[in-house]
Amino acid sequence: MKFCSNCGNAVEQRIPEGDDRPRYVCAHCSTIHYQNPRIVVGCLVTHGERVLMCRRAIEPRHGFWTLPAGFMENGESTQQGALRETWEEARARVANESFYRMFDLPHINQVYMFYRGELVDGDYGAGPESLESALFTEAEIPWHDIAFPVMTETLREYFDDRRSGHYPVRATGLPAHWREWWQRQPRS
Amino acid sequence: MKFCSNCGNAVEQRIPEGDDRPRYVCAHCSTIHYQNPRIVVGCLVTHGERVLMCRRAIEPRHGFWTLPAGFMENGESTQQGALRETWEEARARVANESFYRMFDLPHINQVYMFYRGELVDGDYGAGPESLESALFTEAEIPWHDIAFPVMTETLREYFDDRRSGHYPVRATGLPAHWREWWQRQPRS
Repeated sequence: MKFCSNCGNAVEQRIPEGDDRPRYVCAHCSTIHYQNPRIVVGCLVTHGERVLMCRRAIEPRHGFWTLPAGFMENGESTQQGALRETWEEARARVANESFYRMFDLPHINQVYMFYRGELVDGDYGAGPESLESALFTEAEIPWHDIAFPVMTETLREYFDDRRSGHYPVRATGLPAHWREWWQRQPRS
Repeated sequence: MKFCSNCGNAVEQRIPEGDDRPRYVCAHCSTIHYQNPRIVVGCLVTHGERVLMCRRAIEPRHGFWTLPAGFMENGESTQQGALRETWEEARARVANESFYRMFDLPHINQVYMFYRGELVDGDYGAGPESLESALFTEAEIPWHDIAFPVMTETLREYFDDRRSGHYPVRATGLPAHWREWWQRQPRS
C-alpha cells in the first residue's frame, strides 16, 4: 500500500495513537488503513466412498490437485461461499453440508473454513479455474500431487473420521512438519 | 474506495474479465482491489459458575455489555487473536481454551470466532476500550443490556451446554428474529 484509497495522497507506516502496531495511515486525511486476514472457504464433497477433487488450471500450484475452495466474498456466509466455490471450480452441487474444519494459517494471513457434504446426482465438471475434476477413493487420491497442505490434512482426517464413524469439528493450525514445506513454496 | 492504493489514481467499479461481480479496479495500473469479510475473534471466559463480561467504553454500543472480542490481526491465529482481545479488553488470561462458536454475519461482512476457556487466577480488569469488567452467573447477566446479538446467543448456548454437559462446536448465522433488531441499529 502506497496511497490512500480515500483521498489519493501518500500513506505512511506508523503506530496510530491508542494502537500498538504499525498501520498504513494517510498523512493528509488521517484515514487508518487496517489490513486483516482473509477467509478461504471450501468443501470436502463425498460420493459414496469417493471424494471430489479438482486439478488447478491457475497459479499457484498449476496442475496440482485440490479440494474446491477460494476467497470468501462480502455479503455471503461461509457456507454460501463454500458451495459457490464448489460450483465455480467443480460444477458440483452439494447436499447435507455441515461445518467440518477450520485451519489457522497465520504465516499467510488466512483462515480456512471447510464444509463437508454430499455430491448431488453424481454430477460434476470443471469450471474455468480447473483443468479437470475427479472422484477418488482414499487409495486413488494423488497424495503426492496435492496443491496445499490444508487439503492433504483435511483429506487424511476425513478418511480417519470415516473409519471411526465420528466427524468432530476441528480447529487448529497446520502440523509443524508442514512449516518447512511452506518455506520452500512461492507465496500464494 | 476512491483511489488506487498502488498508484494513487482514481478507481472505477466494474466487473473484471473472468469475474462475475463488480470490483474496484484502477484504470491506470489495472490493480483489482478485492474487499473481503473480516474476522472477529473473542472468548467466552468462565470462572466457576460465572462468565466474564466487559462494558464497552467505545462506540458502537457504548455502555453495553459484551464478551471480549475484536478484529483479528494479520500474523496471528484465531486463538491468539481471541486471547489477545481478552487481555486488551478485560486484562484477563485464559487457560484450557478451545474453539467453540462460529457465526456468519453476511449483512455486515463479518465472521465471528469464539473460543471458550477458563479464567486464570480469577484476575481481571478493564482495558482502555472497557468501562469495567465483571463475572456474572446466568441469573446475574444483564441480558437486556448486551451489546450485540452474537454475544447473547453465545451466552444462551453456553448455559444450555453447561446444563447438558456437552459443548459442541456450532457454526450458523444468527436466528432470524435478530434480523429485525439489526435493521434498527447503526452499522458497527
